[in-house]
Amino acid sequence: MTMTTSPLFAKRGDKSEIETGTSLQPKFDSDGLIAAVVTDFETGEVLMVGYMNAEALKRTIDTGEAWYWSRSRQEFWKKGGTSGQVQKVQEIRTDCDQDAIWLKVSVKGNGATCHVGFRSCFFRKIVKHEDGRVELIRTEAGRVYDPKDIYGNK
Amino acid sequence: MTMTTSPLFAKRGDKSEIETGTSLQPKFDSDGLIAAVVTDFETGEVLMVGYMNAEALKRTIDTGEAWYWSRSRQEFWKKGGTSGQVQKVQEIRTDCDQDAIWLKVSVKGNGATCHVGFRSCFFRKIVKHEDGRVELIRTEAGRVYDPKDIYGNK
Repeated sequence: MTMTTSPLFAKRGDKSEIETGTSLQPKFDSDGLIAAVVTDFETGEVLMVGYMNAEALKRTIDTGEAWYWSRSRQEFWKKGGTSGQVQKVQEIRTDCDQDAIWLKVSVKGNGATCHVGFRSCFFRKIVKHEDGRVELIRTEAGRVYDPKDIYGNK
Repeated sequence: MTMTTSPLFAKRGDKSEIETGTSLQPKFDSDGLIAAVVTDFETGEVLMVGYMNAEALKRTIDTGEAWYWSRSRQEFWKKGGTSGQVQKVQEIRTDCDQDAIWLKVSVKGNGATCHVGFRSCFFRKIVKHEDGRVELIRTEAGRVYDPKDIYGNK
């Protein structure tokens, strides 16, 4: 996988500086994207995984609200633009390789994150039963909202 | 980005079943990989982001210990194989699109996850100062271990 940098951020330098230094030198993949894990600032729950290009990462750092690049729609996506589920960024971190981002956020609006109505997109656990069967089991009691109320019948 | 499925898992069916159903139908990217967020089962802290191919995901589900595909080395990677920092999986989740995995783990050995010695790979926060300067600031007081003791001077 070819890794790319962006003129919006410092050019990636030596390994030691990237891994333990103080300079932000994010690594974008061959599609120009970096993975962003989003957790709830209060509960620590993982809410979603999104992808940012350099401009979306810059907007997120500059505005304190989360921006992504939608891989399916191939466009900038300010989370909450339609739903009101804006992510107020409380803290941003990066990892040792600087090829991933962790956002701790407070969710505005109805407080949910998932487009099918649940609080977290990770509302199902993967369970392997004794007979070898693998099943997804819901971990949230119910939906926070009805997606039809926000997105209509699409 | 072309998305692929794997014969190791159910073929991806209709959107509704993928998003809200009980059947595991993971989506792998054009490199055959799915992102896996790893959090500490006790503290909820995000420890790392890894990537799994279908076989690594299957091994993780089957064995209860985390397996990944190393993008840099292009090989299977059982976390902790060298370091002893084995990840005992307490829960696995997937998200609405089934294109991401969340592992809640207990870390064995010295309890650290990061190859540069810290507990979490996300040991630096991104801070934007009032003058516009962006800086990485450490969030962990110190290293859990000295990587030289495990990996030598490489």
